[in-house]
Amino acid sequence: MSFTPPVNAIGYLLRHGVRLDDINSQGEFEEASPDLLDAILGGAADFARDVIAPTNWDGDQHPATLKDGDVTASPGFKDAYAQFVEGGWQTVSLPSEIGGMGLPSAVSVATNEMIYAANMALGLCPMLTSSAIKAIETHASETLKDTYLPKMLAGEWTGAMCLTEPQAGSDLGPVRTKAEDRGDGTYAITGQKIYITWGDHDCADNIVHLVLARLPDSPEGSRGISLFLCPKYLVGDDGSLGERNDFRAIGLEHKLGIHGSPTCVMEFDGATGYLVGEVDRGLASMFVMMNEARLFVGVQGVAIGERAYQAALHYAHERVQGVPPGHEPGAPIIDHPDVRRMLIDMKAKLMGARTICFATAEAADLGDLAREGLLTPIAKAFGSDTGVDVASIAVQVHGGMGFVEETGAAQHYRDSRIAPIYEGTNGIQAIDLIGRKLRRDGGEAMRALISDLREAVTSVKDASGRDDVDLSVCAAAVERGLETLATATDIVLNATEVDALGVATTYLELCGKIVGGSLLAKAVARGLLAGDPQSAAMASLARYHALRIMPTADGLLESIRAGADAVYDFPRDQLADL
Amino acid sequence: MSFTPPVNAIGYLLRHGVRLDDINSQGEFEEASPDLLDAILGGAADFARDVIAPTNWDGDQHPATLKDGDVTASPGFKDAYAQFVEGGWQTVSLPSEIGGMGLPSAVSVATNEMIYAANMALGLCPMLTSSAIKAIETHASETLKDTYLPKMLAGEWTGAMCLTEPQAGSDLGPVRTKAEDRGDGTYAITGQKIYITWGDHDCADNIVHLVLARLPDSPEGSRGISLFLCPKYLVGDDGSLGERNDFRAIGLEHKLGIHGSPTCVMEFDGATGYLVGEVDRGLASMFVMMNEARLFVGVQGVAIGERAYQAALHYAHERVQGVPPGHEPGAPIIDHPDVRRMLIDMKAKLMGARTICFATAEAADLGDLAREGLLTPIAKAFGSDTGVDVASIAVQVHGGMGFVEETGAAQHYRDSRIAPIYEGTNGIQAIDLIGRKLRRDGGEAMRALISDLREAVTSVKDASGRDDVDLSVCAAAVERGLETLATATDIVLNATEVDALGVATTYLELCGKIVGGSLLAKAVARGLLAGDPQSAAMASLARYHALRIMPTADGLLESIRAGADAVYDFPRDQLADL
Repeated sequence: MSFTPPVNAIGYLLRHGVRLDDINSQGEFEEASPDLLDAILGGAADFARDVIAPTNWDGDQHPATLKDGDVTASPGFKDAYAQFVEGGWQTVSLPSEIGGMGLPSAVSVATNEMIYAANMALGLCPMLTSSAIKAIETHASETLKDTYLPKMLAGEWTGAMCLTEPQAGSDLGPVRTKAEDRGDGTYAITGQKIYITWGDHDCADNIVHLVLARLPDSPEGSRGISLFLCPKYLVGDDGSLGERNDFRAIGLEHKLGIHGSPTCVMEFDGATGYLVGEVDRGLASMFVMMNEARLFVGVQGVAIGERAYQAALHYAHERVQGVPPGHEPGAPIIDHPDVRRMLIDMKAKLMGARTICFATAEAADLGDLAREGLLTPIAKAFGSDTGVDVASIAVQVHGGMGFVEETGAAQHYRDSRIAPIYEGTNGIQAIDLIGRKLRRDGGEAMRALISDLREAVTSVKDASGRDDVDLSVCAAAVERGLETLATATDIVLNATEVDALGVATTYLELCGKIVGGSLLAKAVARGLLAGDPQSAAMASLARYHALRIMPTADGLLESIRAGADAVYDFPRDQLADL
Repeated sequence: MSFTPPVNAIGYLLRHGVRLDDINSQGEFEEASPDLLDAILGGAADFARDVIAPTNWDGDQHPATLKDGDVTASPGFKDAYAQFVEGGWQTVSLPSEIGGMGLPSAVSVATNEMIYAANMALGLCPMLTSSAIKAIETHASETLKDTYLPKMLAGEWTGAMCLTEPQAGSDLGPVRTKAEDRGDGTYAITGQKIYITWGDHDCADNIVHLVLARLPDSPEGSRGISLFLCPKYLVGDDGSLGERNDFRAIGLEHKLGIHGSPTCVMEFDGATGYLVGEVDRGLASMFVMMNEARLFVGVQGVAIGERAYQAALHYAHERVQGVPPGHEPGAPIIDHPDVRRMLIDMKAKLMGARTICFATAEAADLGDLAREGLLTPIAKAFGSDTGVDVASIAVQVHGGMGFVEETGAAQHYRDSRIAPIYEGTNGIQAIDLIGRKLRRDGGEAMRALISDLREAVTSVKDASGRDDVDLSVCAAAVERGLETLATATDIVLNATEVDALGVATTYLELCGKIVGGSLLAKAVARGLLAGDPQSAAMASLARYHALRIMPTADGLLESIRAGADAVYDFPRDQLADL
């Protein structure tokens, strides 16, 4: 169960799907020169393949264990994580002022995809550290920053997010964990948190928890929640580790997948916490990391899909069964048209979702908040749904072997299923898309995106024919797809709230198909115009997307026209049975 | 994790989706009077809910175990199976001449759905017995029939199918298991079989294996394989059980799902076997049970989807999170439009797939072999794909709880994933559909189906408006859908072999959506005309299907137009990376 990341395909999209020149010319980032990019992508690919990927199966088969409040990670994880720290992989996209490599987010989308694909469960740990760093950097006091950030940047200390409670999941308003001001600059945190990813483990010297809790005199609901930093081990003024803080893992969830990621129930028993940001503004402080975390969950979907795809491809090359038409006996199943279709379908779907992730990072790097905000829920939901879809097809390519755990295909299928759920379910993403991102600004950000993509049609037409590469079907599909998207957008903008909510998920799926296919065609056009020799193969992927994926958006538009009436038509009290 | 089958909805489709009068008037079956139907469906629902369903979670958590060649089934299975035998549930659709209840297959589709939903892993055991009975009844000698059938009909002895070997799965041609004629009317069977469902267990006194093997002088490939009956315990002339036969389970697979179903590696070491049917015609003898087994796998998809749906519905009624628009705080998540959409989407998809299963059984009951043959691959593949789709949505409704195993939603998701794989992968079904069922007869059977469904549009229009129930959107969607289906059919009929194979799966999906939606509308029209008071609710399901599911077939048609060129366009040697 080895894994080699498709570094050329990822690099192609990074070079031609992202306006790196514009990002570089801003001066905010370290210059992402072609040579540096090649070195970073190649290094990440080697690291993912050689160090991280070999731990994946062990993590699945031997989940983390909990004993006396201490969690021990899966076999091999501690060593692999130590090499992650040593390689400085935590710092790729962190600003150089605070010790990061200072590269654009788009580059870390590429490197993180490879690491998530190698071991999604392990990759979650640095993802959470990165989110915690963002929150601390933006909202914490200078003292807290000085004390915690250097170790976290290095990856020596990891981060964890303590948000969810049994009654407070998608809606964090009902958080009940208490914080009491001790009057000495610290707070006593008491309560129980669930679903705490990497809430405890033995891979790092310290774990920095960011905890949502409520002060005694704070208002009810989401405007009365504050954010606190609770380190596993208290830190002295000289940076030395002191005594254990008063919170512990008291349970580990038995999950469908990502077994290697310890999902903890955490009990806070008067733990020492430090306020981060303003009192009662905890949820707002969390928002700063929300976009990034959501984007990276979308990247996880693509990543796990890619790993599943590579496994299916490998199997299809090895397995002999029946004689494919036009072939001799002994030809592998990849030569059966339906198997070949499954493979190219997976690859095209992944590439479409990947372009959306890159475009989201590009918007963040360019400081285009409206575009970033608009694309983030699409990247998260469409990327994660694509991961599940592709992982399921990969099981299918394996036939009976796909259902047997030892093959490994089933693990990817199980692992992939979390991404549509955490960091805001995909239903929440769809509501965010049609509400905050679309209807709140009257569709301005979406119209700007459509307009940009319409302009891209011109470049697709210009590039078509160059080096004998035909993109005419792409130009036609993008033009038609953007019409469909514009029509769907108008419907959602003019709908009642309930109608809009009733079609939100369908609208998001439509966006994912059209935007992904359009961005892919646009990237290929740029690559062709730049003379990139890999453009011919990429063009055929874009054509597949244009011919077989984008057209399915039309049916979704019909479904959107139906509104919520169709949803509410059936009597609620007969849903169990007539 | 209780489960109550939706007996009213299933009964509605059985009454109005199946021409029971025509089946009854044939005289081949016991009269399926309304009262008898009610009694059977009610009894099956009670049995599924009270006896079988409580074993489901234990089966998942405590798979069967193997010790010294003997398999012990999951806790509770032996008792539950004993009650299955006692209730005579094995015999529902078996002919009365051989001791069955003699009811139409359509009725056993209904009762089996409930049993599969209650515990799919356990339900597989009688399904295999049923298939083995069919093969023995059709092809075995009178002596074998007299010896084995009575006990199998009672369910006291179960059946198992030993087909697959490591190199012979979808293609059984390369079967290598040997059979040697002992000259005394028996054969010595030697070889290894894998993926043998319920190949050994302790729930029955004897297990009757049907084994594919090759005689020494038989030709290579699929025309040199014979079928043998190998009982676990040899049976004396007086019907008494004798010594253990020379084959054993030597391994159990560790699978993604259906943990309660022992999937055995069976080692035959000169086991005693009896020829069933003619020498070298073993595969043909297997075909007799193929249609039935494939239909019932489609039913399993619907069944596991229904169980997952019911669990999601229950959770959606209980869980409070956020305040749904237009509701007071404390309203459960079912009142969020996107959750309500997920629920009705699941229900409508299940109902569409269920109508196809019933129509397939109806064709079998009416002796319409062409129709049965055409619908079987659609029932199998579309039913099983629907099961996976619905089980995944059900996980999503549960949010984070869906990813935690103890909730049970994850089990349905895992269990459902086998149905698209076994009894011929869904890719094989699609190839069967476009090859043997469509192109071989020049599209005659499909045109007959389309023609029948077009006639149904008239009845849908006639019924619309009755009792204030509007079916006009259904009539329009069915008309348009049948146009789409006819166009797609012409494309596939006129395509090259490779083009047809490259779009086979897409064509099958299109068929499933259009045929399912059309049959559903037709059943509702019949129910309305018959004055069934449940028709109003069913009509709203049909409208949802017409508005939000059938229109997605248009995009599939576009994809079919693209043919296999799009599939083969991307260079094979760059599939791993550019």
